[in-house]
Amino acid sequence: MFKKILIANRGEIALRVIRTCKEMGIKTVAVYSKADAESLHVRFADEAVCIGPAPSSESYLKMSNIIAAAEITNADAIHPGYGFLSENAKFSKLCEEHDIKFIGATSEMIDKMGDKASAKATMIAAGVPCIPGSEGIIKDFAECEKLAKEAGFPVMLKATAGGGGKGMRAVWKPEELQNAWDSARQEAKAAFGNDGMYLEKLIEEPRHIEIQIIGDSYGKACHLSERDCSVQRRHQKLTEETPSPFMTDELRNAMGNAAVKAAEYIKYEGAGTVEFLVDKHRNFYFMEMNTRIQVEHPITEEVVDFDLIREQILVAAGVPISGKNYTPQLHSIECRINAEDPYNGFRPAPGRIVSYHAPGGHGVRIDTHVYAGYMIPSNYDSMISKLIVSAQTREEAINKMKRALDEYVIEGVKTTIPFHRQLMDHPDYVAGNYTTKFMEDFKMEPES
Amino acid sequence: MFKKILIANRGEIALRVIRTCKEMGIKTVAVYSKADAESLHVRFADEAVCIGPAPSSESYLKMSNIIAAAEITNADAIHPGYGFLSENAKFSKLCEEHDIKFIGATSEMIDKMGDKASAKATMIAAGVPCIPGSEGIIKDFAECEKLAKEAGFPVMLKATAGGGGKGMRAVWKPEELQNAWDSARQEAKAAFGNDGMYLEKLIEEPRHIEIQIIGDSYGKACHLSERDCSVQRRHQKLTEETPSPFMTDELRNAMGNAAVKAAEYIKYEGAGTVEFLVDKHRNFYFMEMNTRIQVEHPITEEVVDFDLIREQILVAAGVPISGKNYTPQLHSIECRINAEDPYNGFRPAPGRIVSYHAPGGHGVRIDTHVYAGYMIPSNYDSMISKLIVSAQTREEAINKMKRALDEYVIEGVKTTIPFHRQLMDHPDYVAGNYTTKFMEDFKMEPES
Repeated sequence: MFKKILIANRGEIALRVIRTCKEMGIKTVAVYSKADAESLHVRFADEAVCIGPAPSSESYLKMSNIIAAAEITNADAIHPGYGFLSENAKFSKLCEEHDIKFIGATSEMIDKMGDKASAKATMIAAGVPCIPGSEGIIKDFAECEKLAKEAGFPVMLKATAGGGGKGMRAVWKPEELQNAWDSARQEAKAAFGNDGMYLEKLIEEPRHIEIQIIGDSYGKACHLSERDCSVQRRHQKLTEETPSPFMTDELRNAMGNAAVKAAEYIKYEGAGTVEFLVDKHRNFYFMEMNTRIQVEHPITEEVVDFDLIREQILVAAGVPISGKNYTPQLHSIECRINAEDPYNGFRPAPGRIVSYHAPGGHGVRIDTHVYAGYMIPSNYDSMISKLIVSAQTREEAINKMKRALDEYVIEGVKTTIPFHRQLMDHPDYVAGNYTTKFMEDFKMEPES
Repeated sequence: MFKKILIANRGEIALRVIRTCKEMGIKTVAVYSKADAESLHVRFADEAVCIGPAPSSESYLKMSNIIAAAEITNADAIHPGYGFLSENAKFSKLCEEHDIKFIGATSEMIDKMGDKASAKATMIAAGVPCIPGSEGIIKDFAECEKLAKEAGFPVMLKATAGGGGKGMRAVWKPEELQNAWDSARQEAKAAFGNDGMYLEKLIEEPRHIEIQIIGDSYGKACHLSERDCSVQRRHQKLTEETPSPFMTDELRNAMGNAAVKAAEYIKYEGAGTVEFLVDKHRNFYFMEMNTRIQVEHPITEEVVDFDLIREQILVAAGVPISGKNYTPQLHSIECRINAEDPYNGFRPAPGRIVSYHAPGGHGVRIDTHVYAGYMIPSNYDSMISKLIVSAQTREEAINKMKRALDEYVIEGVKTTIPFHRQLMDHPDYVAGNYTTKFMEDFKMEPES
């Protein structure tokens, strides 16, 4: 087992990793930028090394400084958290070269899954369903017809030079294809001087549902069921839950098996997530694979009752997994508490937390690095806390989240707490009837 | 279902009950003494009624004021929490008379189980093992011999007028009985002018292990396994865990069945606890039954994954239980954080909390009513927080508790956090090798 792990990250996830290391009896090294000198991850680690000034490029992304910090402190492994260098193949390789275990994917794996085209090709080879469509620009209408037929209607025509909906057409029936093709090309030509088109199956009422997997260094993988992350604003997840209210046992089996097949096909080692789009008919399509721990991993921990960071460390140290898949026994929801003003387009609102009181009690978990008096720097992500609840049923979990949000006091900065309160009362959310389009129509009610 | 519940209590348990009511959509009424005006249970309830000044006899024990508060606010039920009026037959009856549902045992049940002699007689009739011994004063040595033989050696001879160990003898073998009888009587006569003696089986290496039960209003009961509460100082529990490290499947079955038998024999309704003493041979003996929710109930919640306060409310409202018994799936430990100085005989240390930061993350639960700036009044119990952890194994739970205790910052008052830190490192605690005598030999190490 590792003796000392350096955590190449900040904020709640750095603290999260330190907690598990402490529980496992592994020493920890925090690294921090000058802006984070007061951060809890610095206080709770056994050692702490300042790696530069605030812009991430000068500190949390500065590979040489981090490797130097690991060498100075004799760390035998590095946990990258999420973001920053967590999916950086060069950094993973650099760790390997310095004989420091990177607790994450190998550089080869990151390269393979980080590039969209290569990831898709790999998944197709592994037999995992991907969104059908053209590979690159469509030659002519005959090819367009053929591809549309293969993908199945409805399909989307998209200008390769496109943007802002220009040169884009949803086509619902074969007889509409010719018109759409002609008009989209004309529009694209006029708008971009380029009428190159590609085609993709249109995913109706798409839901973002991802499968958590763990692979060990012996080629064995298992899945820990899904997380529904469809409530997103500009591709930023706001809240996540497991099980998905859209899930069936059959779909979970199929998606779980596909994710395990994908992981075993590439001999994936570590914790990872296979992200799928699921349409209203419960067809699912591979989107991408994240070769790291994710922000929303705690909801999975709550329903499978074990520690995913611990699992990451164990498989990185060569411990084999049991290979058993897990089905949620409880219902868990996470709300990301961001220092943002939901009444003002979710504009970031850094500043000093004047007063702080966290909710507690049965089924309530808080993962945060902030405290009363903490100054939220403007240099980083605005997420300041994750509020996670778990209960026997979805209805109970929503009620628990509501009472926990009511108890949560963060004064001095604007936060997304009012948004989450309104979300938990939204009829479509309560009914589990939401897709990735949900936030497009969401309007905050006036403050009460 | 109830529309509005008045909580006739204060501190963490009042807040605990309010939380569950909120999650169930039930309105709440807090009552408070003048000393508790700033308390969170007052802030989080829908309504709050001041019921008098600080001495409990003038407020939290003042039945007429509490009944009046319930009537004024139209509460249809009262939850008494623990302590105060929770096991007061008169109050339970008063609630009945005012057509307010008392969420707890009936007055008849409290009377029956509250009196030690009558509880023992009832348990013997129900077939639950009780500590063998004499009923009242022993006539002569012949009877003493007979009783000792029936109880089985070792036995304890005790002076009825006794105290401070005077007139008390442990007797390990039949041939020592005559000497012990004579000398104990002489000593008692000299010390108290009364040589009346009684006899009890001596419980070797006693452990305090209790079984959580729930009974419904249809005469059905189930058990939720045990809690080991052997770490006590002058009968005050300091920490509790489930499963007990001393437990076997066979013993759990036997104790659980005995507790269910006891509950069903008396048609017990509500949440209750049957407390047993368990000797080193894993014989168990009924001690007493608590007809209320207990301080340490959260560790059971963590391992069975549901809310016991919710269950109390449901059965009080006439909802039947499933009747299924529960076996722990995880390991959970609670440390009672008291405002006491463990370096100074656990002397109470009320005062203002200047700075407060609670631990968080995976498997950590906090039940507390305090916050930064809170003034701990000197009028009440010194418990200010319950730190509860759960993990897959006992070893992991201990490690989690250690890291959570390390993170817990409470400044301004002395607390029992340093005691719990040392306890979690104590070889006998770590080995699970402790009895109710454990604290007699425990010495705090000097502060580091």
